[in-house]
Amino acid sequence: MINITKPTLLLNKEQCMANITQMYEKARKSNVRFRPHFKTHNSAYIGNWFRKLGIHSITVSSTAMARYFAAYGWRDITIAFPVNPLELGVISELSNEVTLNIQGDNADLLPLLENVISHQTGFFVEIDTGHHRTGLSWKDHSEIDRMMDWFGKSTRLKFRGFLTHSGHTYHADSREEIMGIYNDTVSKMNYLKEKYLEHFPELIISIGDTPSCSLVDDFSDVDEIRPGNFVFFDLMQYSLGACTLDQVAVALACPVIGKYAHRNEIVIHGGAIHLSKDFLYKSSGERIYGYVVKISDKEWSMPVPGAYLTSLSQEHGIIRANREFIDKIRPGDVVGVLPVHSCLTANLMKGYLTLEGEAIGY
Amino acid sequence: MINITKPTLLLNKEQCMANITQMYEKARKSNVRFRPHFKTHNSAYIGNWFRKLGIHSITVSSTAMARYFAAYGWRDITIAFPVNPLELGVISELSNEVTLNIQGDNADLLPLLENVISHQTGFFVEIDTGHHRTGLSWKDHSEIDRMMDWFGKSTRLKFRGFLTHSGHTYHADSREEIMGIYNDTVSKMNYLKEKYLEHFPELIISIGDTPSCSLVDDFSDVDEIRPGNFVFFDLMQYSLGACTLDQVAVALACPVIGKYAHRNEIVIHGGAIHLSKDFLYKSSGERIYGYVVKISDKEWSMPVPGAYLTSLSQEHGIIRANREFIDKIRPGDVVGVLPVHSCLTANLMKGYLTLEGEAIGY
Repeated sequence: MINITKPTLLLNKEQCMANITQMYEKARKSNVRFRPHFKTHNSAYIGNWFRKLGIHSITVSSTAMARYFAAYGWRDITIAFPVNPLELGVISELSNEVTLNIQGDNADLLPLLENVISHQTGFFVEIDTGHHRTGLSWKDHSEIDRMMDWFGKSTRLKFRGFLTHSGHTYHADSREEIMGIYNDTVSKMNYLKEKYLEHFPELIISIGDTPSCSLVDDFSDVDEIRPGNFVFFDLMQYSLGACTLDQVAVALACPVIGKYAHRNEIVIHGGAIHLSKDFLYKSSGERIYGYVVKISDKEWSMPVPGAYLTSLSQEHGIIRANREFIDKIRPGDVVGVLPVHSCLTANLMKGYLTLEGEAIGY
Repeated sequence: MINITKPTLLLNKEQCMANITQMYEKARKSNVRFRPHFKTHNSAYIGNWFRKLGIHSITVSSTAMARYFAAYGWRDITIAFPVNPLELGVISELSNEVTLNIQGDNADLLPLLENVISHQTGFFVEIDTGHHRTGLSWKDHSEIDRMMDWFGKSTRLKFRGFLTHSGHTYHADSREEIMGIYNDTVSKMNYLKEKYLEHFPELIISIGDTPSCSLVDDFSDVDEIRPGNFVFFDLMQYSLGACTLDQVAVALACPVIGKYAHRNEIVIHGGAIHLSKDFLYKSSGERIYGYVVKISDKEWSMPVPGAYLTSLSQEHGIIRANREFIDKIRPGDVVGVLPVHSCLTANLMKGYLTLEGEAIGY
């Protein structure tokens, strides 16, 4: 058994690679570009596993992340986050170094960018197909036209196409609803594609959310997919039907520090600074911050029935479970927690320990 | 104006020092030991502000934090987190280096500890006065007696007293309820003190939560206080009545990256990896992840009425506000967010920028 003494993010490398390969194969069969989002793992080391499949185009969510992966040799990067007008200098530097795509939904930004950048930079117009976070409404013809007019005369900004993140799939109640959102998204994006294709024959449409990308098998109605979370999956994806519990490739190993049999609880070292605080609701209305798994030599079990991480403070986590499980646990044991949101957990933990005992830092 | 281009944790140093001084003065007047918890700021630099007041005893929440502060010369440290049986070696090393106090609620641990440590180590018995996270019930006479029997014959573990964290104050609905919890806690702790004082005349009682410590003026019924969050305060403390909005000493400065006037929203660079995801409920039932303040030269304003951070994803935050405020904002502006839980925000941000422009790293 791996020597664990503190909260440690275990990575099932084999499952992670299977998740990557599965998404890669689906994209290949649909003949669309696979531009994985690297914000979930945020690791140059794990990035290399994609490279081995021949993937050289990636997505990131900040200029800082773009710099990090550029330093590790990635040369085709889309920053799928709105251009921050205060970072034009950084964007210019990045575009000197790599083939860079940026995104935005604001025509006023374009002349500012044009002034600053010296190398050609790809630009995606972000479209809001219903998530209502950022992006122009697909029906906002006047603003989209304003942007298109600029691209028509721009020498340094190259219009790449329309990009969306249909994050409203995260609020769906069923697979059918997710598929409905995907179909609706694709139809809106293709409407725009057809409208502008004559003037911009190379334009593509790019979609991103993991729930859609996991449930859809045939992506032939889009040109590019940018899922990220699928590399690890998590309980959020499981609750949406986007993965099975087997596919969750990370678990936080946590030392047990207290046992309170009279209330059917154990307390672990593993809190909000390790897992972050996203949660799901049980049907009883109780919050769940994680499922509990048993960790043994080189694997973890399926979740223990009835065992849930029910509360998190800064360093502590409280697990409620049935008496049979509690009775077998002692302080000094190590239990695993499947995270609700693996992106945030990975961001906090900063590194991984594979089940083979290999430490992966950032 | 300070040059901000990305999410940056602003620190109002003057207010922070006022918060520290106020708590120090209250402890001094009550003649109790002030052993501040350093988990909130987690900064050797800010630690020095306490040192200048003559404070040399501190509280931390992990062995890692104990090591960090020990490296910066702190020589009297209580780890207010249950002993992790997998960290006995680290604890032994720490106790060679500093005057160390540890805590626990489990008699079985004591012989294991006694075997490993070579220097005398202080031990607090953790008492659960109603929070129900860790600790022995104050009524669990048999287990408390088992621990006391051990301390009576131990040569290396020195019983220091009873310690509690009445974290159930965080669920209180009024100042009166918090005061009620404080009085109840003090009465239970003093019951234990009186019971064992004859055999352990040096025993003390130590309490910790910021809501109680902020609202109580006279601590003369306890021997030691260990609040932490008061150094910055936050919206959680404000909602409990434990501080005023003026006293909140940190604000996350966030670039505005999108404006969506038709839905009265702006989007900022500032998400779950900057603020973490604790929230409060508005009376309407909507979640609030922060209040919004205007940032000007060397200060931030009181919260903008009706402006709330209503949603967080990994890097994005959505602010909903009234039209008058939205109309004045443009992408590239910087707005401030008062965090719901400053401990988690500070843990994510890892450093501070004072309003005078001084960068404080860990």
